Amino acid sequence: PATKNVGKTDLTEFVGTAPVGDTIGMVIANVDSELSKNLHLQSEFRSLGILSARTGAGPQIMAVDEAVKATNTEVVSVQMPRDTKGGAGHGSLIIVGGNDVSDVRRAIEVALADVPNKFGDVYNSAAGHLELQYTARASEACHFAFGAPVGKAYGLIAGAPAGIGVVMGDTALKAANVDVLSFASPAYGTSYSNEGVLHISGDSGAVRQAVIAAREVGLKLLGTLGEEPKNDFPSYI
Amino acid sequence: PATKNVGKTDLTEFVGTAPVGDTIGMVIANVDSELSKNLHLQSEFRSLGILSARTGAGPQIMAVDEAVKATNTEVVSVQMPRDTKGGAGHGSLIIVGGNDVSDVRRAIEVALADVPNKFGDVYNSAAGHLELQYTARASEACHFAFGAPVGKAYGLIAGAPAGIGVVMGDTALKAANVDVLSFASPAYGTSYSNEGVLHISGDSGAVRQAVIAAREVGLKLLGTLGEEPKNDFPSYI
Amino acid sequence: PATKNVGKTDLTEFVGTAPVGDTIGMVIANVDSELSKNLHLQSEFRSLGILSARTGAGPQIMAVDEAVKATNTEVVSVQMPRDTKGGAGHGSLIIVGGNDVSDVRRAIEVALADVPNKFGDVYNSAAGHLELQYTARASEACHFAFGAPVGKAYGLIAGAPAGIGVVMGDTALKAANVDVLSFASPAYGTSYSNEGVLHISGDSGAVRQAVIAAREVGLKLLGTLGEEPKNDFPSYI
Repeated sequence: PATKNVGKTDLTEFVGTAPVGDTIGMVIANVDSELSKNLHLQSEFRSLGILSARTGAGPQIMAVDEAVKATNTEVVSVQMPRDTKGGAGHGSLIIVGGNDVSDVRRAIEVALADVPNKFGDVYNSAAGHLELQYTARASEACHFAFGAPVGKAYGLIAGAPAGIGVVMGDTALKAANVDVLSFASPAYGTSYSNEGVLHISGDSGAVRQAVIAAREVGLKLLGTLGEEPKNDFPSYI
Repeated sequence: PATKNVGKTDLTEFVGTAPVGDTIGMVIANVDSELSKNLHLQSEFRSLGILSARTGAGPQIMAVDEAVKATNTEVVSVQMPRDTKGGAGHGSLIIVGGNDVSDVRRAIEVALADVPNKFGDVYNSAAGHLELQYTARASEACHFAFGAPVGKAYGLIAGAPAGIGVVMGDTALKAANVDVLSFASPAYGTSYSNEGVLHISGDSGAVRQAVIAAREVGLKLLGTLGEEPKNDFPSYI
Repeated sequence: PATKNVGKTDLTEFVGTAPVGDTIGMVIANVDSELSKNLHLQSEFRSLGILSARTGAGPQIMAVDEAVKATNTEVVSVQMPRDTKGGAGHGSLIIVGGNDVSDVRRAIEVALADVPNKFGDVYNSAAGHLELQYTARASEACHFAFGAPVGKAYGLIAGAPAGIGVVMGDTALKAANVDVLSFASPAYGTSYSNEGVLHISGDSGAVRQAVIAAREVGLKLLGTLGEEPKNDFPSYI
């Protein structure tokens, strides 16, 4: 499902696209004040960076997590439409703020470049998908979106249809001693997506071990509904 | 839209799949207590049975309604993602609890076996779908999901796009003397699905008559938007 | 994506279809009182007119806006399912009420006839869509759905994925002096659609100018995600 970057534009607002998820990055150097007041931002900034996608919330949020570590910017909005173009999950609208347009542009460039990497543990089949994410040190985007403690290891374990995520979550918690942040499901903490999503925190080795154990079980379960689930980019976990 | 059950797995959590709706059944013999606390269950149990699907909430809920009648289990969660893989309706995540894993496994087996039957009055076309359900004696799943009085006849009358469900509902109520439990629509009682859904209760003959009258009108209306709507399994009502 | 109107029916409830969006129009001459109580209508009426669609909320709402100006009817419900058959936006369920079935039938006929026109500034690509709407004099449907002041010019500026709508909105507000009614996005004021939508009001020339400026930027941005976005009906703005 790689997206062709066919078009180009000389619009100053355009930063670039990522080759997956219909992901586009943009900046507004000096946002209109009436628009800013109506965007439901956590804090108002002169310059905004925007990462927007049809498919994927986790990968883009994790990519922005890296971007805000590397730049002088702040996450001011994370929204998750019910999308994936008929798939079971979310798209994403993430906005970062800064006082200088070069900072927010740099943040969006860093995030766009990292999006394919963070799709490395997204596995798709005709019946559903799995998503695994892991960071040894969560930053502001994981905190904003998922309540991850900043500076600690964080893991995301998702399965679709949602029941697969329930069993993956149970497997993860039996595999290693980690803290549960929350479990999201169609009626709780998702935008009615068909996902079961466990968010965990704790010791980095334990979080990674829990994520890997869940991935193994998820691949087997989703495989019973048809063909073997495949990732489009190399696994990073 | 029958789903191939290509894969197999020896995972003890896997129970089976149904040949429609990307429906998978699973059990957890002894659920992790931290997971259980985060699943938003009506009551906590040692063993959980899980029925999860991309397409269909009504058929799976009706199938679990039969399953809990037949086993020593209880419905502890019914969640309805906005799904159907680009269609107009819901998927489902249904969890039953029990104190013995053999009970919950049996419940999921019974439900999986009954799912195709309960798709018998689901009619699809490229433009939308109709769904009719009927039981002479509603049990816990219909009560949990739709507020149906336990032990009385219950009927579900749905049309998509939603306006078709409005006219079907009006037809049903003029055809027989039944009680309205509720009318669900995109902004009320659905997960923003494009369905109009009348839930009725009452005398079993009257409920069945109302459902049949609505089906006739729904087939004519949905047919005006393209080809004749078709069911993939034999009608049971 | 024009929908064939293959079928016909002699049902008195059927009014017609529009050749886009799987849009169907129906009437109920004398609505069942129990159904009426459960429909969450703003006011109850003897006769109801129903416009229901899989794809498009803006075009149908704008078409009903014209219809209620032209007939003795009132908008009593506007609901927006998350739909578009796997696309990024909404479908719609719009109900108008009247005391005479001939009035509501006429309203639905007028709306159905105007739907293609109001799709004139909907631009689609595989990656997303843009929607622009404009009226020099908003009426009850725009007021009900979007809070537009009745009798004043109103404009709708939408982009999907949602971030494109943010930049279009910023462009619009810098192009002309208009009032912001609201900005809708996945988590605010939509049904979790992947759209950014600016609603504006003000002087008719200014509103139109803002809409046109946003359209130009939106076409460039959406084009970077693949092929050039196309409208299926002639632009009316």
